[in-house]
Amino acid sequence: MSQSDVHGQELWPRPWRPPTLADVARRAGVSKATASRALAAGRATARPAATGCVQRIARRLGYTTRRPDLPRLLVLSSGLARTGYWATLSGVLEAAQEHGTDLSIHVLSASPARRREALLQALGTRVDAVVVLEFDSLGLAALHDLPEGLPLAVAGGYPRPDDGGLKRAWTDDHAGAVMACEHLLGLGHTRVAYVGVPSAGHPDPRLAGWREVMAGAGLEAPEPVATGWGATTGERAAAALTRSGATAVLCGNDDLAIGLLSGLARAGARVPDDISVVGVDDHPHAGAATPPLTTVRLDFARVGQEAVALALGTRSEERVEVPVELVERESVGRPRP
Amino acid sequence: MSQSDVHGQELWPRPWRPPTLADVARRAGVSKATASRALAAGRATARPAATGCVQRIARRLGYTTRRPDLPRLLVLSSGLARTGYWATLSGVLEAAQEHGTDLSIHVLSASPARRREALLQALGTRVDAVVVLEFDSLGLAALHDLPEGLPLAVAGGYPRPDDGGLKRAWTDDHAGAVMACEHLLGLGHTRVAYVGVPSAGHPDPRLAGWREVMAGAGLEAPEPVATGWGATTGERAAAALTRSGATAVLCGNDDLAIGLLSGLARAGARVPDDISVVGVDDHPHAGAATPPLTTVRLDFARVGQEAVALALGTRSEERVEVPVELVERESVGRPRP
Repeated sequence: MSQSDVHGQELWPRPWRPPTLADVARRAGVSKATASRALAAGRATARPAATGCVQRIARRLGYTTRRPDLPRLLVLSSGLARTGYWATLSGVLEAAQEHGTDLSIHVLSASPARRREALLQALGTRVDAVVVLEFDSLGLAALHDLPEGLPLAVAGGYPRPDDGGLKRAWTDDHAGAVMACEHLLGLGHTRVAYVGVPSAGHPDPRLAGWREVMAGAGLEAPEPVATGWGATTGERAAAALTRSGATAVLCGNDDLAIGLLSGLARAGARVPDDISVVGVDDHPHAGAATPPLTTVRLDFARVGQEAVALALGTRSEERVEVPVELVERESVGRPRP
Repeated sequence: MSQSDVHGQELWPRPWRPPTLADVARRAGVSKATASRALAAGRATARPAATGCVQRIARRLGYTTRRPDLPRLLVLSSGLARTGYWATLSGVLEAAQEHGTDLSIHVLSASPARRREALLQALGTRVDAVVVLEFDSLGLAALHDLPEGLPLAVAGGYPRPDDGGLKRAWTDDHAGAVMACEHLLGLGHTRVAYVGVPSAGHPDPRLAGWREVMAGAGLEAPEPVATGWGATTGERAAAALTRSGATAVLCGNDDLAIGLLSGLARAGARVPDDISVVGVDDHPHAGAATPPLTTVRLDFARVGQEAVALALGTRSEERVEVPVELVERESVGRPRP
């Protein structure tokens, strides 16, 4: 089958549809009434032999009366591979298990025309609550695609004046960047560079936090040394960073910082003696970096857990700001005199 | 609302159900026939004013005729946070976008009683194909929970004599471990230790590969130094490893290896001068480790992509073994004479 066939309804042979009671009865060679009685466990009015057979066939075909007795949670995400996504989703998963909630993650389509239709299909015949990972432009767009009246909470992003007071759990990344930058200035650094993550749907609050602290101290905040998501960008930023004369650098995430540590080591720069490095995330690898990475801990798992509680209405609050903290390890020191 | 209420059907006030045409008509103050005509775009037989109003209301309420014109792919997973999961899911996501397929990920419940019911609910009214991430015991169990006749492919795991010839894409982790261990023996190492990942549903094929190579060379393969998933386990394994007298170590994944590199550095052991370290995965951070990590590259993203193609039937093959390769970096050298 060619790929384009997949899009054509006529050419796509739907090989499966949920079986009906009639399918089960036909396969078992009994009447629908007999099949129905056989499937009503406890009331064994069907012949015992038929009962076992019908039940086995129903199971094999996936027949269910689909009693809606499991609360169903749908999470909308546009990606999975970046730390914030899988870490938040892990918290969602944990909370869903605790709450006894059936969990599906719907991956948002990048195409506006498809996104809404796919989303409505994913909502299916019943969903009890929705959590949107609002890290990026697709998450933001999905908020406008959702039907009115659906219980909803947002994980991540930032409260905005125009968000209609959405239920939301988030980490204050801006405060994290401020905290990190003030820590560096407190140690005597004046030339603090920034390696950033791309802005996604809204301006990067980490960049903004760094700029504010620098401006507040009357220091220059030059353009970010580099921008990207991963270790490779960080590694490549090392050369430009050492040329910049900065004595410290704030990285928009730990992937960048971990790559940068490697790039700096290759370039012969010592961390923290020549340059201090701070990340954001507290990735599971941050403590195993060389040297162990000072970073702003963003508790994504808790954001996911709180968002589930907000969506299910098991929490009286409407908004939960999950605190950030600076985790001091060994990649930061005083600037050389 | 208390948490236990969530489980009680009576106490759970389902605040949302998909709207019907009648809901739309009532809200718009028109008849169902008028609403129906208004929603049939192009055939503007309804009054123009009513048409716009009905369409806006339908959109706001999330009313859809749910034409099944988007192929729908459901992926079954039991977790998200470990590399194999998010890396494979990223490949699935990419392939789903390429194929124009609506993608949802259903997170498997650990409770057998709930798992099947939740799964049937997630299948909903229509699904065109299923991909199971069969890394662990929940993935294996889900294979038995799936209805007959549903187009299916498995991502990961291993072909088994009793798997009924399932469509499958996988990486040959056993061959990867063999490759890594033979590489170490080829450099002259004879005392090669193993730090392992927990066995999950089936014996660890990486452990088996290491044991086979050691046995084949007449060398001792002692019990794994430690077992776990993450960098912390690797970090803690450093002390036992240095005591073991091994000159090289194969780690069951890169998280372990990255943690071990950090633990060895703290213990004052030089890599690779004192001990060579090999990982498995080629995690995005492997190249940024200190020293950069030699590892067996497992192309999880391609496994995900191939599994989607197998499930959708756009590939004539039934089984795709994605090749593994040894990525040589700087964490491996000859043993000291």
